Amino acid sequence: MNLEVVTIGTELLLGFTLDTNGAEIGRELAALGIRVVRRTSVADRPDEIRDAVESALRRSGAVLTTGGLGPTRDDITKRIVAELYGWPLDFDEGLWQALVERYRRRGRIPAESNRSQAEVPRGATVLPNQWGSAPGLWLEGPPGLTVMLPGVPLEMHHLLAEEVAPRLATRGGGSVIRSRTVRVTGIPESTLAERLGEIETAIAPLTLAYLPGLDGVDLRVTAWGLAAAEATRRLDAAAAELRVRAGDVVYGEDSDDLAALVLEVAREAGATIAAAESCTGGMLGARLTEIPGSSDVFVGGAVSYADHAKTALAGVPPALLAAHGAVSEPVAVAMAEGIRERLGADLAVAVTGIAGPGGGTADKPVGTVCFALSGGGETVSSRAILIGTRAEIRYRAAQAALFLLLKRLRLSFPGPEQGRTRK
Amino acid sequence: MNLEVVTIGTELLLGFTLDTNGAEIGRELAALGIRVVRRTSVADRPDEIRDAVESALRRSGAVLTTGGLGPTRDDITKRIVAELYGWPLDFDEGLWQALVERYRRRGRIPAESNRSQAEVPRGATVLPNQWGSAPGLWLEGPPGLTVMLPGVPLEMHHLLAEEVAPRLATRGGGSVIRSRTVRVTGIPESTLAERLGEIETAIAPLTLAYLPGLDGVDLRVTAWGLAAAEATRRLDAAAAELRVRAGDVVYGEDSDDLAALVLEVAREAGATIAAAESCTGGMLGARLTEIPGSSDVFVGGAVSYADHAKTALAGVPPALLAAHGAVSEPVAVAMAEGIRERLGADLAVAVTGIAGPGGGTADKPVGTVCFALSGGGETVSSRAILIGTRAEIRYRAAQAALFLLLKRLRLSFPGPEQGRTRK
Repeated sequence: MNLEVVTIGTELLLGFTLDTNGAEIGRELAALGIRVVRRTSVADRPDEIRDAVESALRRSGAVLTTGGLGPTRDDITKRIVAELYGWPLDFDEGLWQALVERYRRRGRIPAESNRSQAEVPRGATVLPNQWGSAPGLWLEGPPGLTVMLPGVPLEMHHLLAEEVAPRLATRGGGSVIRSRTVRVTGIPESTLAERLGEIETAIAPLTLAYLPGLDGVDLRVTAWGLAAAEATRRLDAAAAELRVRAGDVVYGEDSDDLAALVLEVAREAGATIAAAESCTGGMLGARLTEIPGSSDVFVGGAVSYADHAKTALAGVPPALLAAHGAVSEPVAVAMAEGIRERLGADLAVAVTGIAGPGGGTADKPVGTVCFALSGGGETVSSRAILIGTRAEIRYRAAQAALFLLLKRLRLSFPGPEQGRTRK
Repeated sequence: MNLEVVTIGTELLLGFTLDTNGAEIGRELAALGIRVVRRTSVADRPDEIRDAVESALRRSGAVLTTGGLGPTRDDITKRIVAELYGWPLDFDEGLWQALVERYRRRGRIPAESNRSQAEVPRGATVLPNQWGSAPGLWLEGPPGLTVMLPGVPLEMHHLLAEEVAPRLATRGGGSVIRSRTVRVTGIPESTLAERLGEIETAIAPLTLAYLPGLDGVDLRVTAWGLAAAEATRRLDAAAAELRVRAGDVVYGEDSDDLAALVLEVAREAGATIAAAESCTGGMLGARLTEIPGSSDVFVGGAVSYADHAKTALAGVPPALLAAHGAVSEPVAVAMAEGIRERLGADLAVAVTGIAGPGGGTADKPVGTVCFALSGGGETVSSRAILIGTRAEIRYRAAQAALFLLLKRLRLSFPGPEQGRTRK
């Protein structure tokens, strides 16, 4: 089945708003085997909307619109589409009452101009919208299939997933486009490619895309036009093969977040975590505490940006700072051990580095970051050169620190190690 | 002048890629008074591309394409457009040499298949691309104006700003669409609207949009179809009027970032800043240290997530925590004073709250956040109920803390106040 998308809104053409709806529809329908063959964005103008919907129906026989369904002048889309089908608009008392009730709960009364929102083209199916005031509409008849959704992303999202996708699920002709992503971090793309070897041949007819980003490299495998069960079987096999070949740099799949994984594994292990951050300035703590319930595991940390803050908050001896400089493995070790002891945590990670653009030297160029991980009787330190802008270096440093935590936790913390500091 | 945009790429329709190029073109051209009347996204398929470009030229007489200009199968767009104009493709030796040189710098040699990248429709103007391998093209003739740009966002961005915009600048008919944004925070939209009163009448024919977001509310004024100088004059006047009416909740304009403003004003005042964060978990530190050079001003802070971390890092007396609870103004005051003293900063801000989804009580519902600001001999505390999801409450809490810092700094810190704690 082919389908076109028409997104309606002057804001889209002016570039004030990104067309996230259009992208979401593409992903959702591809997973059902429905091919979006064209997407058209037009302004809130009757002649433009009519021309776009009419020609989409003529070309492809099916169109999904977003936007142009709100009150006042925006509901022009509904009138135009009803005209294309030759269907009159009926006032729907049930919809009106639902709207009145919605306003009442907010202590308001709908205006007379809102009555048009309760009008439905005769023969259309109403797609109830409990997240907003304008329902979706499903019209199927001589010119083809037209699905109309509101433009507010949250409302569009729910209606697409809960009302539209189930109705379209049987129309994809049985073949789907489906993807799976294996997420790796802490390895350059070229080294990763060497590890993977002739993977493309091994997973054919599935295709592989390398998607390098701040989190690391995402390996996206895609099954094109296979039956749903076959696609899933092959994606499972390909993901397993990727995991084996990539090895210890894999941290998760699809939308897995490294901070969420760290908290999950630590919670299972009954371990608490602390952090001492210099160049990341709080990003590590922010990422961990972004996750609901993180207080079970994350006790807190020091944002020890200035040298004297490293001493005041994590007990780093001034002599150590003077001898090695703030960006050094001995200081990272002292930061990690200091914050772990002060907060009584099982495990502590420390990050100190030069995010740039200033501050680099020949010895320690911009991007130099030292890490330390303390817990279970030992403290391990490491040093890396991260690349990118200031924001990228900082994000990558936080991601690397989280990955150190995850790898350590996966080695079933607390381990049997005795107290020693290892370089 | 009207123009249509055609963005080419299967990834766009599958939703793997957001059409950021389309939005950027809309903004850039609107500022020149050129109206983008339609945007069409099509797959990398010759028939789809031909139909989209041909019908755009027929309807509007001008089209700008992005994508479909790379090597191998992607350069189909150039062949299709050349055919529409009836212009043959000539091999351009200069372009080829530039491409060879580009490869050489990377230690590579272009393949024979790359030669097609050096082909130019006879009569087209080459728009040199120093950021990538495929140049832009400008074709003007019987079917209309076609501008072809590469799809890589960075390359598109440079060519649009440096090659296309100057050529189109004189065609906007002298009238432009231009916006200015006044940024406010810490005030509900409805209260803001009351403050602004009959502002729409005062700024007509400019229009005003309220854009509520996590940073606060952005007030965007837009001049539609005025001469450039007139638009600027009216936008200046409207922004000034908005600033006066909105009052003390204004923090900046356009893309001003609150953290950057805090650092700038503190640097001028010669003041250093520390932070003690509970519910924001490091976001405040992360926002401040995102800005290059922040180490001049921001010395560090405590991420005192657990109660005992508030004591260990900021010296909050356990008895105070027991008496008032971690989310209370007295604890916020102790956090701010404790971290300021330990780090020897001039000014310290503290945030402690319930970000949810769990942890709320009847007394202190989810969203309750207490703030304290310590410095210049006094500590001031306040309490707010912030709304939204966990992520939204946290972001808003960090933003509110930054705004407290900025307001205080603008009152020309250090002030003449004597040592006292004020509620």
